Amino acid sequence: MDFQISEDTQTILELINEFVDKELLPLEQDFLHRPWDELMPTLAAKREMVKQMELWAPLHPKEYGGVGLGLVDYGLVCEALARSPLGVFVFGCQAPDAGNIEILIKYGTPEQKEKYLKPLIAGDIRSCFSMTEPEQPGSNPVLMDTTAVKEGGDYVINGHKWFTSSADGASFAIVMAVTNPEAPRHLRASMIIVPTDTPGFNLVRNIPVMGHVGSGWHSHGEILYQSCRVPQANLLGPEGHGFVIAQERLGPGRIHHCMRWIGICNRALEMMCHQALTREISPGQRLADKQIIQAWIAESAAEMRAARLMVLNCAWRIEHYGQKEARQDISLIKFYTAGVMQRVLDRAVQAHGGLGVTDDTVLASWYRGERSARIYDGVDEVHKVSVARRILKQYAAEHGLA
Amino acid sequence: MDFQISEDTQTILELINEFVDKELLPLEQDFLHRPWDELMPTLAAKREMVKQMELWAPLHPKEYGGVGLGLVDYGLVCEALARSPLGVFVFGCQAPDAGNIEILIKYGTPEQKEKYLKPLIAGDIRSCFSMTEPEQPGSNPVLMDTTAVKEGGDYVINGHKWFTSSADGASFAIVMAVTNPEAPRHLRASMIIVPTDTPGFNLVRNIPVMGHVGSGWHSHGEILYQSCRVPQANLLGPEGHGFVIAQERLGPGRIHHCMRWIGICNRALEMMCHQALTREISPGQRLADKQIIQAWIAESAAEMRAARLMVLNCAWRIEHYGQKEARQDISLIKFYTAGVMQRVLDRAVQAHGGLGVTDDTVLASWYRGERSARIYDGVDEVHKVSVARRILKQYAAEHGLA
Amino acid sequence: MDFQISEDTQTILELINEFVDKELLPLEQDFLHRPWDELMPTLAAKREMVKQMELWAPLHPKEYGGVGLGLVDYGLVCEALARSPLGVFVFGCQAPDAGNIEILIKYGTPEQKEKYLKPLIAGDIRSCFSMTEPEQPGSNPVLMDTTAVKEGGDYVINGHKWFTSSADGASFAIVMAVTNPEAPRHLRASMIIVPTDTPGFNLVRNIPVMGHVGSGWHSHGEILYQSCRVPQANLLGPEGHGFVIAQERLGPGRIHHCMRWIGICNRALEMMCHQALTREISPGQRLADKQIIQAWIAESAAEMRAARLMVLNCAWRIEHYGQKEARQDISLIKFYTAGVMQRVLDRAVQAHGGLGVTDDTVLASWYRGERSARIYDGVDEVHKVSVARRILKQYAAEHGLA
Amino acid sequence: MDFQISEDTQTILELINEFVDKELLPLEQDFLHRPWDELMPTLAAKREMVKQMELWAPLHPKEYGGVGLGLVDYGLVCEALARSPLGVFVFGCQAPDAGNIEILIKYGTPEQKEKYLKPLIAGDIRSCFSMTEPEQPGSNPVLMDTTAVKEGGDYVINGHKWFTSSADGASFAIVMAVTNPEAPRHLRASMIIVPTDTPGFNLVRNIPVMGHVGSGWHSHGEILYQSCRVPQANLLGPEGHGFVIAQERLGPGRIHHCMRWIGICNRALEMMCHQALTREISPGQRLADKQIIQAWIAESAAEMRAARLMVLNCAWRIEHYGQKEARQDISLIKFYTAGVMQRVLDRAVQAHGGLGVTDDTVLASWYRGERSARIYDGVDEVHKVSVARRILKQYAAEHGLA
Repeated sequence: MDFQISEDTQTILELINEFVDKELLPLEQDFLHRPWDELMPTLAAKREMVKQMELWAPLHPKEYGGVGLGLVDYGLVCEALARSPLGVFVFGCQAPDAGNIEILIKYGTPEQKEKYLKPLIAGDIRSCFSMTEPEQPGSNPVLMDTTAVKEGGDYVINGHKWFTSSADGASFAIVMAVTNPEAPRHLRASMIIVPTDTPGFNLVRNIPVMGHVGSGWHSHGEILYQSCRVPQANLLGPEGHGFVIAQERLGPGRIHHCMRWIGICNRALEMMCHQALTREISPGQRLADKQIIQAWIAESAAEMRAARLMVLNCAWRIEHYGQKEARQDISLIKFYTAGVMQRVLDRAVQAHGGLGVTDDTVLASWYRGERSARIYDGVDEVHKVSVARRILKQYAAEHGLA
Repeated sequence: MDFQISEDTQTILELINEFVDKELLPLEQDFLHRPWDELMPTLAAKREMVKQMELWAPLHPKEYGGVGLGLVDYGLVCEALARSPLGVFVFGCQAPDAGNIEILIKYGTPEQKEKYLKPLIAGDIRSCFSMTEPEQPGSNPVLMDTTAVKEGGDYVINGHKWFTSSADGASFAIVMAVTNPEAPRHLRASMIIVPTDTPGFNLVRNIPVMGHVGSGWHSHGEILYQSCRVPQANLLGPEGHGFVIAQERLGPGRIHHCMRWIGICNRALEMMCHQALTREISPGQRLADKQIIQAWIAESAAEMRAARLMVLNCAWRIEHYGQKEARQDISLIKFYTAGVMQRVLDRAVQAHGGLGVTDDTVLASWYRGERSARIYDGVDEVHKVSVARRILKQYAAEHGLA
Repeated sequence: MDFQISEDTQTILELINEFVDKELLPLEQDFLHRPWDELMPTLAAKREMVKQMELWAPLHPKEYGGVGLGLVDYGLVCEALARSPLGVFVFGCQAPDAGNIEILIKYGTPEQKEKYLKPLIAGDIRSCFSMTEPEQPGSNPVLMDTTAVKEGGDYVINGHKWFTSSADGASFAIVMAVTNPEAPRHLRASMIIVPTDTPGFNLVRNIPVMGHVGSGWHSHGEILYQSCRVPQANLLGPEGHGFVIAQERLGPGRIHHCMRWIGICNRALEMMCHQALTREISPGQRLADKQIIQAWIAESAAEMRAARLMVLNCAWRIEHYGQKEARQDISLIKFYTAGVMQRVLDRAVQAHGGLGVTDDTVLASWYRGERSARIYDGVDEVHKVSVARRILKQYAAEHGLA
Repeated sequence: MDFQISEDTQTILELINEFVDKELLPLEQDFLHRPWDELMPTLAAKREMVKQMELWAPLHPKEYGGVGLGLVDYGLVCEALARSPLGVFVFGCQAPDAGNIEILIKYGTPEQKEKYLKPLIAGDIRSCFSMTEPEQPGSNPVLMDTTAVKEGGDYVINGHKWFTSSADGASFAIVMAVTNPEAPRHLRASMIIVPTDTPGFNLVRNIPVMGHVGSGWHSHGEILYQSCRVPQANLLGPEGHGFVIAQERLGPGRIHHCMRWIGICNRALEMMCHQALTREISPGQRLADKQIIQAWIAESAAEMRAARLMVLNCAWRIEHYGQKEARQDISLIKFYTAGVMQRVLDRAVQAHGGLGVTDDTVLASWYRGERSARIYDGVDEVHKVSVARRILKQYAAEHGLA
């Protein structure tokens, strides 16, 4: 066993930490209070700096213009970037584009790569991923009402989606739709690329989420697909393989999310320390002198370290044994880390008193926005049940109790 | 011991429940998504209905046009009203006006009553209460920087306040300011009535709280008092007695808040049941059939019942023995009930999955907005420490360990 | 609503508190470290004092020689007695005899009352209740393997029971056995009185529970019924009504248990205060000065008050509306109060450091022994599920979702 | 980063797992119910098998007859051994001997090594470590009343110790006593070897801990040192360096404890699975089919994995950077892992219902016995406070807030 981070990665992390501190944290109030479009010119300039530093797209392969980090190293990068809510965007590795890029690299035709992947990876356009439906439980992705029916050389798509994050301003969506209704449940749906200017692609609204309507990248769309017609050439990957590909996308995506959550925790803990050290609660007594806040800091530190090691271990296992072998790990880190983040943010808010619930700091935004972490990519409870079933099944097999 | 609610109160509660269901719940989406001013015409009409039903101002004395309920009965009314975020407003017993009315009744001069109390209790104007300061810990209210200096027949007020709730659109503020800087800490500040159109009363902004800027009654103001001059006749109660009066205001106010929180829990539990019974998670299986959600429902029910009885017991003790005897109870219900509400809302959000974090239901609004409950009126931790000190002091006294 | 305890009850409680302090707490070390038989002479003398004070058998009707308290008042007595683990025994209201007495009063024939009830209520003999079976889940009491077959004028009983508390030294057992195997599940079993000297009644062992083998009243027996033959006249209540009667026994029994648990919490909190006030952790600093222990004290106080009011409310509801109407309440108090006790005891142990895990105080005995509270009379989880089902069923009925 | 366990270690772990399953688990009921002396002949035979397998004393250096594993590898061994409460004893690496051996190796004179170390490491004798005092908080080890005064060539020791584990039957104690009362606090005490047959070494009792008096290795002694006289040659390490040496002993000792606790969790989880899979709760329904128990299994698995990685990471840091650099890590793993173990054992007990609280399984013994884990080696709360202080101090230093 060796817990050493390589020197190369260490160097990258130091550069990122400095960049986040100097270039991104000062933008936080603008991020919290101004519409996305107003931020874009500044963010574009920051992105240029990142490209100059040769840190653009740290996750993506070198041949596509990225840094090509492995999953463990990229996880560490995510953690460092997440101290700012703008970090991953400015470094060109934001969801949902990052996942879409991975799919396009693996399954895209040369034409699709040219038309969609290239500008996406360059940061010239944005995309979205359109899977979740309001009428169906996200916990059971094979339940899906949206259909894509072949007519002429086209697919005609009809359906209702929501939580299509970053649809506002995206150039195209990757849409999950049932193409093979008679196939076994897991082989019914396909992924289809739908440019957002296609007639019948209707962005109904940006869903208000915890008081935040949002705009641009920082939004969650509700989409009605109404006889939305695209060429069959827009099929992404084999027909009927939508779920298979979506699963592939989820594993590394959970590493990204979880390490991002740890990064958020790091920042929240820093802010808790700052508040504790600077808030005088009575003459000569700072918050930092009090045991209750000390206990919060220590418990946060322990849980954060525990979660972080668990996520890095999972990333390492995906790298070494593949995603399938790491399925159990992926479920475990998802619900454990989401829970840690919620507790750490809650303590940080409470430590700030009245200031903590205002939007004068980033904490309140995370407190409400990241509440979704326990819900998206499968609600925690679904992961717990599937973890337990696997453990029980394995025990039963090993002890002849099946 | 007798846990029976009187028949009269029972009748009132049934009327209110019906009114909330029929008249207020349908306004919820407007409340969540439209500015306060747009709501006001509708709310004014609803208020008229309440007056016709002779349920207006249930808390306030009959001679002032209210229903004159005792604290236990009024607590039950708060619980019933709180199933809608508009309940207390439409029934004329909303914070901060309710507390201001109590102070004006007890301490107002005949002129103050005529000018401020009468229209306030009638619902013709609104008011605010301006105590908390950004630079001082709310947990220690005797630390205060705002001053009111006598000049001629006036007070000249200078200071910085925030969390002056409902300042936007209020006709006057009751301001806490240091008038006697040389007096003992608890006798330094006074309450002064300041009409909001007084020069030097500057509403800097409605503070964005958990993503909600708000407007009108549903807002939290930040105020700069800059050489704000009012006649000394605007002094409310004896000079130097600001904290004494504020303390009197807090006890019953906590009953109102806590019973309101229980009402919120009741509604959240109803919504959780509705979601559980109507959400199919796989063919033939509803969420309601699953043990994890069943455990949430049962644990919520237990905690809510426990909190409710504790608050009612506290209200009864205030009624029978006075607020001072009930100080310990008041601290206990504050932190216990705030904690219960947070857990119940968290479970309700989670049970709704993606829908739970959207503003398509009222849950997300409560989840983020009521996070403040653990902070205002003294952060939970301060109450815990003072509860423990009293218990320890009493034990020491009884066992000669002082 | 009226939370006032009557003056009569208040007087009784003061007498009991004094008696517990003076007469019972000094016996605690003997209780913890010596076999039951060695304690009995002293306990018999204490019981005589209680009889002289006319406080013997506070729960049982006056015509049977008891005090005849109602359920709320008796609950308060249980709370007071439970500060000592010997309280209920010395006052003649200990489980399982108390429940057996209730059944015998309601269902006993004149002969059964003369032979079993009279000496039992007088404290001259002890009894036990033999229901739980090792091979069947206690959570589902209708699953039962023990049978009683009629032969001649006798029942011949065969079966395996455990957790037959206080069997060691008991004069008779009330045994649950299947008499009508073809009847519907809930009407299969009957209660039968079995003198413990009947051939075929075999006390296999006192089960070691959490390191405590125990003896006499303070023990849990495992019994093998091997062709154990008693006259049919020993049938208690109607044949096939075993579960019905057992259910009747459970409701008030839970009030007794829960109020006893609150009494244990009261004592644990006192001990925590004592330790905090007397333990110097560094020169001039006592444990009591530290926020972490202060938080434990305050949280314990809040949870204990919440649980206590909930139990008293439940007792009041049983008294006024009957046990059936209070089924939901009974389940709620069971799991809520058991949880509170576990947390309070855990904090009290921790506050005592090394001393807390030794048997030099009563805390460790409660910590391990009362762990069973979350298990007996239905594991907490079963109660949670049944509470939730009732809530969901009622919501569905009220909203047409059935 | 590399989470791979070496092949050599993997082989050792497999051998140990098999040995524990075949040779040690069958002894569990004897361990739980019979005195230590009766077990010893069997255990001696098992130890012989271990020596034959060349796995004896895995922690200790090869030149002293051990296997000489590093701290990470030895941690993994501890985990595997801890599935049986007899594991570490049978493999010759049990506390407190393991720690005493480390000290003797580092500080023992040739004579001390010959007389004490050699037979100790061979398993021919046992020892104990006598530091904790009943009248002083264990959280502040520099508070110590026991003294060792020089007279002639001897030390004369007077004092009162408890929690001197395994004193019963030990050949010698390493005693902490104040030798230099005028020195700075941390340099007052020394370690002195005291053969237990020295006059004045009085084992007052084996302290009953959570109902367990114990005997032999499995006991906790209370010792009175009454003018107990030993030669000054029995001084172990430099005079006044008792605390320094004790600190050195603690770091690796916490790794051993924590990995042992994880091993206990592993076994408890196995037992929970077994119970869930084999317990029918209604016809056709096993406990394993229920979500509540599934959630317990999943939450246990997550917490156990998190704790395990954190402990292994800490072990690795001690190996690579030394104990001083890893002080923060050592505190974090201590309270975090102790908490995980308590929760896992609690769930396992609950999952077993009535069986869980009996001593028919090992669970109840661990539930009560390992409650001490949150207390010994510094109560959790002291570790939390010191962790927080270090974090705050570092933040203050980095941000100029000191």
